[in-house]
Amino acid sequence: MFTTQEYIARRAGLKKLVGEGLILLTGNDEVGINFEDNIYPFRQDSTFLYFFGIQTFGLTAIIDLDNDEEIIFGDDPSIDHIVFSGPIESLESQARKVGVSAVKSVSELSEYLGGAVSKGKKVHFLPPYRAEHSVKLSALLHVAIPKLEEHSSVELIKAIVKLRTKKSAAEVLEIEKALNITVEMQYRAMEVAKPALKESDVFGEVSKIALAKGVGTSFPPIVTINGQILHNHYRGNELSEGDMLLCDCGGEVASGYAGDLTRTFPIAKKFSATQKEVYDIMYASYRTAVEMLRPGQLFLDVHLAAAEKIVEGLITLGLMKGDPKKAVAEGAHTMFFQCGLGHLLGLDVHDMENLGEQYVGYTDTLKKRTDFGFRSLRLGRALEEGMVLTVEPGIYFIPELIDLRKKEGKFQEFIDYEELEKYRDFGGIRVEDVFLITSNGAQILGNRLPTSATEIEEFMVSHKRL
Amino acid sequence: MFTTQEYIARRAGLKKLVGEGLILLTGNDEVGINFEDNIYPFRQDSTFLYFFGIQTFGLTAIIDLDNDEEIIFGDDPSIDHIVFSGPIESLESQARKVGVSAVKSVSELSEYLGGAVSKGKKVHFLPPYRAEHSVKLSALLHVAIPKLEEHSSVELIKAIVKLRTKKSAAEVLEIEKALNITVEMQYRAMEVAKPALKESDVFGEVSKIALAKGVGTSFPPIVTINGQILHNHYRGNELSEGDMLLCDCGGEVASGYAGDLTRTFPIAKKFSATQKEVYDIMYASYRTAVEMLRPGQLFLDVHLAAAEKIVEGLITLGLMKGDPKKAVAEGAHTMFFQCGLGHLLGLDVHDMENLGEQYVGYTDTLKKRTDFGFRSLRLGRALEEGMVLTVEPGIYFIPELIDLRKKEGKFQEFIDYEELEKYRDFGGIRVEDVFLITSNGAQILGNRLPTSATEIEEFMVSHKRL
Repeated sequence: MFTTQEYIARRAGLKKLVGEGLILLTGNDEVGINFEDNIYPFRQDSTFLYFFGIQTFGLTAIIDLDNDEEIIFGDDPSIDHIVFSGPIESLESQARKVGVSAVKSVSELSEYLGGAVSKGKKVHFLPPYRAEHSVKLSALLHVAIPKLEEHSSVELIKAIVKLRTKKSAAEVLEIEKALNITVEMQYRAMEVAKPALKESDVFGEVSKIALAKGVGTSFPPIVTINGQILHNHYRGNELSEGDMLLCDCGGEVASGYAGDLTRTFPIAKKFSATQKEVYDIMYASYRTAVEMLRPGQLFLDVHLAAAEKIVEGLITLGLMKGDPKKAVAEGAHTMFFQCGLGHLLGLDVHDMENLGEQYVGYTDTLKKRTDFGFRSLRLGRALEEGMVLTVEPGIYFIPELIDLRKKEGKFQEFIDYEELEKYRDFGGIRVEDVFLITSNGAQILGNRLPTSATEIEEFMVSHKRL
Repeated sequence: MFTTQEYIARRAGLKKLVGEGLILLTGNDEVGINFEDNIYPFRQDSTFLYFFGIQTFGLTAIIDLDNDEEIIFGDDPSIDHIVFSGPIESLESQARKVGVSAVKSVSELSEYLGGAVSKGKKVHFLPPYRAEHSVKLSALLHVAIPKLEEHSSVELIKAIVKLRTKKSAAEVLEIEKALNITVEMQYRAMEVAKPALKESDVFGEVSKIALAKGVGTSFPPIVTINGQILHNHYRGNELSEGDMLLCDCGGEVASGYAGDLTRTFPIAKKFSATQKEVYDIMYASYRTAVEMLRPGQLFLDVHLAAAEKIVEGLITLGLMKGDPKKAVAEGAHTMFFQCGLGHLLGLDVHDMENLGEQYVGYTDTLKKRTDFGFRSLRLGRALEEGMVLTVEPGIYFIPELIDLRKKEGKFQEFIDYEELEKYRDFGGIRVEDVFLITSNGAQILGNRLPTSATEIEEFMVSHKRL
């Protein structure tokens, strides 16, 4: 997938940016589901993958910046392991393919690190996102688990973000592979969904394609008639004629890159008049956002423009009122659009989210907002050539939120609560595509899917692909 | 699925067996795949499920035996959580359904435990199988992570094993549901497999059924033309006419109970003469084992009898020689049958494996053997009414193992290494069914699947179900 030279260049970039000390990158281990040997599908840590590319558990890598030394610590399997899991390529051979010549046993890691620390070297490591990292780092570095995050290296985080933000041509190809699997998943969902099936039947079909054509899904697929529940993983409802099905899913390819696309479509093949009105508002918001994508454009402003477009539309429906700009400034749009417009995508579906959204999606001067509706906007900073990101506006009617805000007496200037009652059970809709920022604009990635209401209805009736 | 009374009775049984002190049971948390919020499908800890039945992350339960107090520690979701994940039933209401009236916030847990410990109460807890348990238990009990296992409670382990070993009628029904999904998975694999498809295509079909009809797979399905690799998770090979496909898979139902069945079938619809010869030997071993199942029967002896039957068969093929009993006594059968004949099944596909195989499958006087071919025999002790277990003999030709043993000069009295070379690339076959031990014998669970070579060939040709 990637050449030895590309891995060497990535590490050279990292070394230049971090400068001095020692970089410690922990690969992921296997995680037991209900006992140690019944494991979840193994997923290598994305940063480890980016710099070292090896898809095996139990590895740790060290880059000693002062001695310009790169070592992978890991152990080759025993005969028992070969009997149960088959022969695997030696670690030394795998390491050579990514340009690393030094391989040592895990048993040497602690002493190696101890030696470096006793010489006063700074150890750069990342904040843990799995308990296994905490246990491992705490034992290796003699730092108490609750203190690990504050001892992690901001310099290392910033360097990784800088490198991983700009996708290479080879990375974009991997993302497109993942998206093309995802396009197949979306088409399949639209092809099979029909009254009397359950959400879980469509979920099964969508998952099957990810498992058969890639290495699985890049996140647990959301397949729901209750699109207003943003990360809905219940899937026991039966589909009925009047329902819309929201399908948000992604395939993952062997290299680890993720797809992520959403479509919302009517089980009856045609949207009802009300459904179409709301869909068109969301689609207008999507168009507005997409047209703004170019290097230098603050993504926070794209989010706000997309929100304003939604407010404008809801004013024509009579659900909102007043000045759209002012409504967005006061956060009234968060009644219907509670989440972020998009996020970076790459080796992670929310790319680099484990490094901290402030570092990934914002800057030293642009702080991530913590108020409702903005704290889930993962990307705010100016777009750059080579970024890959999603655009995913949505309109969601959440009964619990409506009741809460009404009780609080909030947004009275902008919301017609009486009119809103009629939409209480509307549900939620979203559309999501993935874009690459180019030198002067943006380019959609992956094969085409029906996107406008008309295109979706045409596909639902004809099953003819674009 | 289970009545409030059944949960109360299970805990009453536990209290009686453990006697005094305080029982601390940690539920499972969510595990990030590549960042904290991108989570693997949540799976509750099986012991927590058995006694408390609640399928939510972030819970801990305490049973204070001295005060006869049962408390679940957990927190209800915030509005942010409701927006993203939908409304969920309050913890109090869920607790009431399993007969627990005391619910406290997680923030109170540390103080509650501290108070109990300062009064000199013994805290019974289980050995951790996920790093999250280690981190949680270490912080709560002020025990260093490497010391947790030795501080865990053998009394608690033994009490749980005693209770969970004997399945209630309601539990057997749940296992049958899981098995019937698994039967559908097996039929689907046989129906769709054909030349030029990839293993991953069949894997996708099999997984789809588990996802659509249950909550997923009870372990990562093995779908491979290289059946000799016992836990093979590579699935990129193309199926060809001469191949046999080994499919070992299980569905899991909402209550957490597991299915686990294996079939090996010819892509060409008919076995070759050599394939059929080896299949028949394995099937004879299966029949021998099944006929021996009854209360009081040492399962280690069933394993040995099944191994002997394999040796007898391989002698007729000319691959082995000498006295079958002696061959098994000296371990020569482990050249072809490297794993255990079966394991308990219930909430876990290897039931209670996290509690330690010595406690689950053996006794104080019957120690688990540690030599090759026996260290993966998870069950050795006498069978009891109400046990549910698998029977899964197999014959595997592992080139790396053949080469190793030949080089070591082992088993020369029993193996014809020259003849064996002809079977070097045969692959591996297995059949696996699940049985309930009854008062005077055993009963197969779940709908019927083709099992003998003839039945399998008939299904492959006709697609007519039994």
